[in-house]
Amino acid sequence: MSVDYVNMLPREARALIREGKFTKQTSGICAGYAQANLAVLPAEYAYDFLLFTQRNPKSCPVLEVSDKGSRELKFIAPGADIARDIPRYRIYKNGVLDGEYTDTASFWRDDFVSFLIGCSFSFESELLASDVPVRHIEEDRNVPMYITSIDCVPAGIFHGKMVVSMRPLAHDQIVRAVNVTASMPRVHGAPVHIGDPAVIGIRDINKPDFGDSVTINPGEVPVFWACGVTPQSVIMSVKPSIAITHAPGHMLVTDVKNSLLKF
Amino acid sequence: MSVDYVNMLPREARALIREGKFTKQTSGICAGYAQANLAVLPAEYAYDFLLFTQRNPKSCPVLEVSDKGSRELKFIAPGADIARDIPRYRIYKNGVLDGEYTDTASFWRDDFVSFLIGCSFSFESELLASDVPVRHIEEDRNVPMYITSIDCVPAGIFHGKMVVSMRPLAHDQIVRAVNVTASMPRVHGAPVHIGDPAVIGIRDINKPDFGDSVTINPGEVPVFWACGVTPQSVIMSVKPSIAITHAPGHMLVTDVKNSLLKF
Repeated sequence: MSVDYVNMLPREARALIREGKFTKQTSGICAGYAQANLAVLPAEYAYDFLLFTQRNPKSCPVLEVSDKGSRELKFIAPGADIARDIPRYRIYKNGVLDGEYTDTASFWRDDFVSFLIGCSFSFESELLASDVPVRHIEEDRNVPMYITSIDCVPAGIFHGKMVVSMRPLAHDQIVRAVNVTASMPRVHGAPVHIGDPAVIGIRDINKPDFGDSVTINPGEVPVFWACGVTPQSVIMSVKPSIAITHAPGHMLVTDVKNSLLKF
Repeated sequence: MSVDYVNMLPREARALIREGKFTKQTSGICAGYAQANLAVLPAEYAYDFLLFTQRNPKSCPVLEVSDKGSRELKFIAPGADIARDIPRYRIYKNGVLDGEYTDTASFWRDDFVSFLIGCSFSFESELLASDVPVRHIEEDRNVPMYITSIDCVPAGIFHGKMVVSMRPLAHDQIVRAVNVTASMPRVHGAPVHIGDPAVIGIRDINKPDFGDSVTINPGEVPVFWACGVTPQSVIMSVKPSIAITHAPGHMLVTDVKNSLLKF
């Protein structure tokens, strides 16, 4: 009998992940529950990074910050082990990818602080529920992402350009999409730009910097949202001695329902 | 000729305040512009306090955090001098009030970090614009505030009970008041409680812990919002070596329009 990951509870999925029985991408599992980006930094970087998230809430909507050294999450996933409950991690040393792991417990340090950041998976499920189509899901690709000319607001050592994700929409879908996502500020909120990619420094909409290109049909308008890749990009640019993140698409499944991210 | 403080621009008001020509409460001046609570702490406390605000966004909606040692605000009041542009300051040493000043420049230190926190003045003006009456304004009193039994989420050394403000409303005004304030999460957002004060640990609604008692007419329901006194109360309870705050009612007038706090 095949396992029904879609209707599994988050704590059940995290248990399977912790046991090494689920190591794939988490897109679509535990339907209705929010997933989160992970960024783990030594405490020496934590204040500057927390201030960066405060100053850039659309790119970096923080769902929870762990206590220093703790692998527990008290609010969005009680009982989770941050070091083990994500299917695949990346460890960066001095800004360079050092390896991928399914368990990072042996690397954990007493000075690590974990930042869990909202993910566009949450607002995509609300878009679909409101009959706004999501092209990259239709085409079974990764969302196209672009480095823009928009400067993030710097904080301490952290600075860089905003990364955006793009979803092409018909004119009569745009207002609905703005309203649905504006109501979810904890998962990137309303779009940052609608229309001409050149306005935000994107030269070729068919050549995303990350993810895959998707079809834009005649009459459709590209709509851009602040993207959770921004904080990872910004972290890597300052080359911290060590940083642990989730591997792309391999997120933390939280106990928070997407619909509750509106409040 | 009397000065028209109501229709003055914020930068004009701040200039008068800096010159010592305006030292009164700021309620009602620069109509339409947000005012902010101030809490200045040495950097050693800044990470724990910033994390406290992240974990308690309804009590501590941060509008801006200064860079360490800087008296400038880049976003909500460019050109302002944090140490001089508030009409009246309080300095606390080891949690005890040490003095009130109209200028704190001579006390400033290179390790000070300033937190500017949203203020209920902003949502009160939106309530009035939506024909929801605000009793303490009608009665020309200070808003009644109560220490509740609701624990704030602790962060590092900071912990304590949530302080709430109360406005009595008729039944047919409550839904409107919830909607108006829910749309303004950067100034405390939706109410935290509606109705029976005992549920949140308030024994006598006629004896507020801070501010003044107001009339509750037959059929009216007390409605409670998280209050910006919470962060001050929490800061004082840990007795920092030094802290500078605004004096009650003497706020920083920002360049941010109240109506833009909805976005």
